[in-house]
Amino acid sequence: MAGAQDIALAIAVAHEGGLGGLPCAMLAPDTIRSEVARFRHEAKGAPLNLNFFSHRPEILPPESAERWQKALDPYYRDYGIDPGTIGGGVSRQPFNAELAELVAELRPEVVSFHFGLPESSLLERVKKSGAKILSTATTVDEALWLEDHGADAIIAQGLEAGGHRGHFLSKDLTKQMGLLSLLPQTVDAVKIPVIATGGITEARSAKAAFDLGAAAVQVGTAFLLTPEARISAAHRAALQGPSNRETAITNLLSGGDARGLITRLMRELGPLSDLPPPFPYASTALAPLRKAAEAQGLGDFSPLWAGQSAALAKAGSVREVIEALRVRAE
Amino acid sequence: MAGAQDIALAIAVAHEGGLGGLPCAMLAPDTIRSEVARFRHEAKGAPLNLNFFSHRPEILPPESAERWQKALDPYYRDYGIDPGTIGGGVSRQPFNAELAELVAELRPEVVSFHFGLPESSLLERVKKSGAKILSTATTVDEALWLEDHGADAIIAQGLEAGGHRGHFLSKDLTKQMGLLSLLPQTVDAVKIPVIATGGITEARSAKAAFDLGAAAVQVGTAFLLTPEARISAAHRAALQGPSNRETAITNLLSGGDARGLITRLMRELGPLSDLPPPFPYASTALAPLRKAAEAQGLGDFSPLWAGQSAALAKAGSVREVIEALRVRAE
Repeated sequence: MAGAQDIALAIAVAHEGGLGGLPCAMLAPDTIRSEVARFRHEAKGAPLNLNFFSHRPEILPPESAERWQKALDPYYRDYGIDPGTIGGGVSRQPFNAELAELVAELRPEVVSFHFGLPESSLLERVKKSGAKILSTATTVDEALWLEDHGADAIIAQGLEAGGHRGHFLSKDLTKQMGLLSLLPQTVDAVKIPVIATGGITEARSAKAAFDLGAAAVQVGTAFLLTPEARISAAHRAALQGPSNRETAITNLLSGGDARGLITRLMRELGPLSDLPPPFPYASTALAPLRKAAEAQGLGDFSPLWAGQSAALAKAGSVREVIEALRVRAE
Repeated sequence: MAGAQDIALAIAVAHEGGLGGLPCAMLAPDTIRSEVARFRHEAKGAPLNLNFFSHRPEILPPESAERWQKALDPYYRDYGIDPGTIGGGVSRQPFNAELAELVAELRPEVVSFHFGLPESSLLERVKKSGAKILSTATTVDEALWLEDHGADAIIAQGLEAGGHRGHFLSKDLTKQMGLLSLLPQTVDAVKIPVIATGGITEARSAKAAFDLGAAAVQVGTAFLLTPEARISAAHRAALQGPSNRETAITNLLSGGDARGLITRLMRELGPLSDLPPPFPYASTALAPLRKAAEAQGLGDFSPLWAGQSAALAKAGSVREVIEALRVRAE
């Protein structure tokens, strides 16, 4: 959950017997190194999952950045922000040679990718380090592709899931399936284990996923109300607010399709829009608005990532979340 | 499954211990009467479910019908169809006083509605006949509304489901949830039993639904390849074809949002479009195209309704479908 957690959540999950993960897409290599060191120290002997984005960044057309800034102009004026001061940086780096070397150095037991897999030479480097490779499929075709290209297990992401959709073979959102349909069809199609994600918050949904053939479940939103989650006060309030059943897939916040609670920006521009530049460029122009609004306790321009079962997430410790997820033997 | 079955399927389901249903939205009252008589004769003592649509039809603006015919003009020319010959009839009648009297006469054990509930005087008439009332919810808000307005049980329709979405409080498709998220939240919210539907084709998904809190499951697509299903050869072929994992929600075929396999019309106009008139008027102008294409074995203009688990449907008898759905005690 890039942007919503650091290694503290991974450590707490490891202490409860789960596979803790560190999202690396928004971290500098030195930060990844120090976070992993902390994990190795505080969760001795536990396996660790490093997650990377493996998108192929598009070149940002200048007119695309301009169109987006223009669309945001009324908001800049409201907040007294000078659009001329907005940088052109990129918030999310794809996996690259430097990170492959870092993986070889840090030897995580599991490396997962979002948006397909990195190019084969990079993937080989990771495999040689001894890491098991996971990646996300949102369709059966993507699962078959990942199996064919070297994944050791598939993460089947139902469209209930919060955060970025992992689709990489097609951007057509009509192909995105509910987990109840995606999971058994994926299990039938591939020979490698399938991990279920999307809408899994407690034992009922975890048990359903195992019934549908999952080898394991991956949980995100259910951890957002733990003390270890690093989310804004606005995000935390929205997750517990009266509209916490209302999510939508939006491309406004990063340029990529991701599910979150409905914000003012999503309501006013429509959650899916032609206005933002491609992933991951949309977030740069939003950054000063997000900062200004969050300072007032508002999540109007923030990614309030959450899955369709967000309303079932309960504030509590990581131990309590994992206890609530445990499927008892019958 | 209006348009895809008659009483034969209900009788076969009843023989296997299921609750058989007759979709009445496209049937004349006399046909309903004779079908029910056949059920009472051939499935003696079994309960029967009559299903009605309870939409509030909008007035069709003439310019809306013209725009739709104009959009279809290239297809009319291809097939040599004179658009002047197209009638203005309506294919689906909402529940009304005549049908309420018919229910009182026929005394089905269960009456289910799609698109909310009929107005209270009609609903009272049905309740007085002794029928249990079911209706479909696609959101927790709709489930609460139905409970409040007299439903005896809720059908929670995950967005995996084939055919018409039952949404009636909002047409905003972003509110539509995967069954894995919708079902437990609905079960928690209402006091009456919740029946799960959408993507349930076999024991894996049926068991998942029971784990998520369902009191029963409702199955549609899994019956489409039984001998009792009344679907076109094109529909049957598409369900078993290489693209049977590809469905989309479309408003092209009736004007309402419904999930089906991707057709030429959906590909060429986009599955969700501003072109068609409101439900249920879109189908009238398509009827001659559908007929001409189906005569050539093509489903290009047909509603090929199917859920997201259509690829898991197997050709076989109703008995085999129900055996495959049975959840064994552990």
